[in-house]
Amino acid sequence: MALIVHKYGGTSMGSPERIRNVAKRVAKWARAGHQMVVVPSAMSGETNRLLGLAKELQPAQLDAAAMRELDAIAATGEQVSVGLLALALQAEGQPAVSYGGWQVPIQTDSTYTKARIEAIDDAKVRADLAAGKVVIITGFQGIDGDGNVTTLGRGGSDTSAVAVAAAMKADECLIYTDVDGVYTTDPRVVPEARRMHTISFEEMLEMASLGSKVLQIRSVEFAGKYRVPLRVLSSFTPWDINIDEEAVSGTLITFEEDEKMEQAVVSGIAFNRDEAKFTVVGVPDKPGIAYQILGAVAAANIDVDVIVQNVSHDGRTDFSFTVHRNDFQRTNDLLKNTVLPATGAAQFTADNRICKVSIVGIGMKSHVGVASTMFRTLAEEGINIQMITTSEIKTSVVLDEKYMELAVRALHKAFGLDAPETVA
Amino acid sequence: MALIVHKYGGTSMGSPERIRNVAKRVAKWARAGHQMVVVPSAMSGETNRLLGLAKELQPAQLDAAAMRELDAIAATGEQVSVGLLALALQAEGQPAVSYGGWQVPIQTDSTYTKARIEAIDDAKVRADLAAGKVVIITGFQGIDGDGNVTTLGRGGSDTSAVAVAAAMKADECLIYTDVDGVYTTDPRVVPEARRMHTISFEEMLEMASLGSKVLQIRSVEFAGKYRVPLRVLSSFTPWDINIDEEAVSGTLITFEEDEKMEQAVVSGIAFNRDEAKFTVVGVPDKPGIAYQILGAVAAANIDVDVIVQNVSHDGRTDFSFTVHRNDFQRTNDLLKNTVLPATGAAQFTADNRICKVSIVGIGMKSHVGVASTMFRTLAEEGINIQMITTSEIKTSVVLDEKYMELAVRALHKAFGLDAPETVA
Repeated sequence: MALIVHKYGGTSMGSPERIRNVAKRVAKWARAGHQMVVVPSAMSGETNRLLGLAKELQPAQLDAAAMRELDAIAATGEQVSVGLLALALQAEGQPAVSYGGWQVPIQTDSTYTKARIEAIDDAKVRADLAAGKVVIITGFQGIDGDGNVTTLGRGGSDTSAVAVAAAMKADECLIYTDVDGVYTTDPRVVPEARRMHTISFEEMLEMASLGSKVLQIRSVEFAGKYRVPLRVLSSFTPWDINIDEEAVSGTLITFEEDEKMEQAVVSGIAFNRDEAKFTVVGVPDKPGIAYQILGAVAAANIDVDVIVQNVSHDGRTDFSFTVHRNDFQRTNDLLKNTVLPATGAAQFTADNRICKVSIVGIGMKSHVGVASTMFRTLAEEGINIQMITTSEIKTSVVLDEKYMELAVRALHKAFGLDAPETVA
Repeated sequence: MALIVHKYGGTSMGSPERIRNVAKRVAKWARAGHQMVVVPSAMSGETNRLLGLAKELQPAQLDAAAMRELDAIAATGEQVSVGLLALALQAEGQPAVSYGGWQVPIQTDSTYTKARIEAIDDAKVRADLAAGKVVIITGFQGIDGDGNVTTLGRGGSDTSAVAVAAAMKADECLIYTDVDGVYTTDPRVVPEARRMHTISFEEMLEMASLGSKVLQIRSVEFAGKYRVPLRVLSSFTPWDINIDEEAVSGTLITFEEDEKMEQAVVSGIAFNRDEAKFTVVGVPDKPGIAYQILGAVAAANIDVDVIVQNVSHDGRTDFSFTVHRNDFQRTNDLLKNTVLPATGAAQFTADNRICKVSIVGIGMKSHVGVASTMFRTLAEEGINIQMITTSEIKTSVVLDEKYMELAVRALHKAFGLDAPETVA
């Protein structure tokens, strides 16, 4: 008997019929002798409907008082879905009880709309589990020290599930989603992309931060911090498939590096075209220049991703960075009106037709030559690299966006990801 | 400066546009210097939508565990509307904060779906009022001693508002609804019906229990118990009407009997056609017979309204009672299959084409001949009375339903209700 946490997304909870299927699946796990905690999202579309209503009424400036109300409103979506799932389980003959985050309680800080979980009291939940009940807890939300409802931000239900699993020291946290696991890259771009049976926590973190949308990045960080074994699997398999088969399906995010007999050097290829690139040309190369440029950008609340500063010539250097494509115009105006006059730079260039392609693999820690294989592969395809940035387990390049699919396919093949995975 | 509670029904909260109007009205009261607490219902249709979803999933037998979930689900409707109203007030530049019943807390017993309020902690609310905020509290719901969400049953938001007003010792509780007050009778039946400026609490209680749908009866009981001055008024007047005019509009439910200079003998005529009549004929007239008949009906969870037992002849009597028309078939089957065999009664008659018409007036306490005026008026119209029942301040008769409008109009005129009211 194990303690298992299931998390179901909004699509899985999207209709009474689908909720009934979730209930049947959870009841199957309970009948197999597991203690079950379930964290569902709101029914799909519900959070948007609620925030849409709020948008029609909210003040132009959202201060803390307004954000408090937005959180209270948005949180009701999950409060409905947990109740519905509890009823559906009871209809299956499976005792079940639902709790809002405030009832557990899931204690958070007071940062409305993106609160962070601070503590979870598991006493009530344990008592219910001991009494043979399935416990259903709202995702996405908690309660702050003053008794206000808070939400964790978009995708926060993943984080809730992992946090509950961590607090309860669950044996595994299963994230049921609309894909059947984590792939070496997006199968829509590379048909040969393979589902990984396991991926290391660090690789998953890079994949998530690089744009793979399978898991919310904060949930991966949380899983890493508390070493919660996490599995991503499909909610679209029939609910009555063999439970032993289901228990090993999807992709397991693992913390045991040497679990895999044969460590792939590169595990996956991530990519996105969400970014735009700016280069400030001819910046005086003196201390504090990076801060002068990026400080202004940060002050405007614009997130910067890749940063590259070239070596200088004649006391002048080029300074490049990327931002989210949505911030393209604001960044452009900021450089023109503020940064150029302040730094004495000659000019700047802006490009919103770029992409970022990254190879990720924990094996890169111990293998040399991985980056050069990447660069050679791209060169052989005639693809020019505009920027390069690296970390211990990933190498990212910025390219003209027209080369994105070509680059991803070439790298997927070059690193042997087209071949069937060797399972330990 | 007064402490005022406003209650708005689901229709008033039915759309963002309407919520904005509620906010403007409340802000007007706040600007006039009043401390404002607002108790809104869920947006119209929302509670039905939520319970409709639940119905698709709930178990066939609703035990306490299932009813707990139904309450948690249904309660979210108001949790959304309070947040939306708070945002709308903030957008008007009026500081506002919303609370769910559990946050105040509004403490109830654990009778899910029809819980009763036990206590309200007003500390948080008073602090917010002192800080210049409008406080918005969910209607219809509270929290029990174990931290479970409970609801008060249909129309419970009226009760919530009155309970909050009682706990806060508010100067007045204003119930905004889709009618502009309490009428001497239904204006759709008697065009001459007059809106009353005041009505006594006891009269209002009888009117509510007799089918006048203006206020939920429990809210009137609550108002009576705690002597909360209650005013029913229209939410359809423009929000920006003069506040002094608005403050005396509608109908005030009062506890000061001698406030009115001239006490009307009969204040209003109530009526409904929701009932069905049964007469068990030739029942042996012996002790325990009423229990034998009505005990079986009560055991089947059927509410009985009017009960009349005639004097006996030759050791046999006739026993009549009315039930809600929805229970007609069940009651019919019960009498046929259970009661007749058990009592040795000869037969029974059933009639679901009846109506009940009642005259209500606190003046009946001290005036004689009121009932006989009623009977004479009906006789003059050739209307046969089937059953009669009386209390201190009302007399009800059961008639063939085809006479209902005729009886109501004749009585309305006979008791001088067509004439303009004398305001004290």
